[in-house]
Amino acid sequence: MVPTKAITPHVPTSPHEIIEQTHEAYELGITIAHLHARLEDGTPTHKKSVYQKIFEGVRKHCPDLILCGSTSGRMVKDFDSRSEVIELKPDMCSLTLSSLNFLKQASVNAPDMVQRLAEKMAKNGVTPELECFDLGMINYGHYLIDKGYVKAPVYWNLIFGNIAGFQANFQHLGTALSSIPKEHLIGLSGLSNYQLQVNAAAIALGYGVRVGIEDNIWWDNQRTRQCSNIELLKRIHNLMDIHQAPLFTAKAFGALGFRNNEA
Amino acid sequence: MVPTKAITPHVPTSPHEIIEQTHEAYELGITIAHLHARLEDGTPTHKKSVYQKIFEGVRKHCPDLILCGSTSGRMVKDFDSRSEVIELKPDMCSLTLSSLNFLKQASVNAPDMVQRLAEKMAKNGVTPELECFDLGMINYGHYLIDKGYVKAPVYWNLIFGNIAGFQANFQHLGTALSSIPKEHLIGLSGLSNYQLQVNAAAIALGYGVRVGIEDNIWWDNQRTRQCSNIELLKRIHNLMDIHQAPLFTAKAFGALGFRNNEA
Repeated sequence: MVPTKAITPHVPTSPHEIIEQTHEAYELGITIAHLHARLEDGTPTHKKSVYQKIFEGVRKHCPDLILCGSTSGRMVKDFDSRSEVIELKPDMCSLTLSSLNFLKQASVNAPDMVQRLAEKMAKNGVTPELECFDLGMINYGHYLIDKGYVKAPVYWNLIFGNIAGFQANFQHLGTALSSIPKEHLIGLSGLSNYQLQVNAAAIALGYGVRVGIEDNIWWDNQRTRQCSNIELLKRIHNLMDIHQAPLFTAKAFGALGFRNNEA
Repeated sequence: MVPTKAITPHVPTSPHEIIEQTHEAYELGITIAHLHARLEDGTPTHKKSVYQKIFEGVRKHCPDLILCGSTSGRMVKDFDSRSEVIELKPDMCSLTLSSLNFLKQASVNAPDMVQRLAEKMAKNGVTPELECFDLGMINYGHYLIDKGYVKAPVYWNLIFGNIAGFQANFQHLGTALSSIPKEHLIGLSGLSNYQLQVNAAAIALGYGVRVGIEDNIWWDNQRTRQCSNIELLKRIHNLMDIHQAPLFTAKAFGALGFRNNEA
């Protein structure tokens, strides 16, 4: 949502660039592609017409990849705009489970909005990526499951390092992870310098990771060099090699019922 | 903010009622009075004219009690309205450290709003009650201290049992409490049935408590009987007696620098 070409030249913005980079990542081995659409001038958009181009292009090259659209409320606030992408029936869409603050702005996801997005996803056969920045969001995820809005098991993306959320330390990691039963699937993310820390800890202890320049545009902690999604992904694979960790392919993930739209 | 006479007859709403109940609680032994003002029809108000009557009345009877006003954004949204009460220079005002969701609504406290409230408190010699519903808010409290908005040590009120926040379990309690260094002062609160659970755990392990019908209007878990602030307070004192826990008087608290306005 945030990086532009002015911030980093490595961010793919046109459908063509996004399709190409996703394809390259798929060839290296990824399970889910969390995708953000942009207008021609590079600004973020919720428009399904743009998402459609991206999804169609990616599906052509990566038939079994799990495609995830964004229902973020950072750019558009109303339900219809935020939920447009769900109508394309991608495999997955992001669902942030509460209101929160980032460093400079509030991100408002009122209970009613969260529930309506979850309902529309269920109606369209889209599984949510439950985005959690703090303990309360995990609790709200369980509440949605208990109330029937979301079907368990589900995929949780836990995000660490936001100023007003989980921090990248073992206590927060442990408390967060122990709040989610074993049968669920979990990816761990970190913002800026915390991305590598949290991703590496996740691989070491056997969890999934989310990696990419949505969360971190720098290669090094000193922020001397910007890098691409592909470079970040290769570093993750190096870590996985060291741990002799198997790639969790899209196919295996899909076998668990997390891919709704068969090619 | 929420209970009305229609919800429970035990809620004090007129300045006279609030002053009388605070006085009674003071005689029993309390350290801080967290006060909400109401208009004549009982609806919550941020108006300093109403707060002034309450503060003056309470101060007359309870010269060393720490008085705390509310800067809640649940009823009014703009900075001037939310911050009016600070101009009366009570000892303390509440400061919710991030945006969050309650069961049915979002509570928006954007970073800019939180910082401006903290600045105005500092300028008026008012110490904040740092209200934290989740880990990220504690982290943001430390950020405000690091940046000089808030002076350490400070008083933290950790609130458990909100659907999108800390839950009333030992893991959340432990992770929250280990995020705040020893030199700070901490009160633990719980919503509805969790009030007694969390208060009792707090007393057992040596922390402060916040108790009252703002957070819980029921005497029993089965919700068969509504009760008064005084009844809830007496139950806390019963627990403290069992633990042979000393009352932490307003005077002792003030000696630590938490009371700014000498009588």
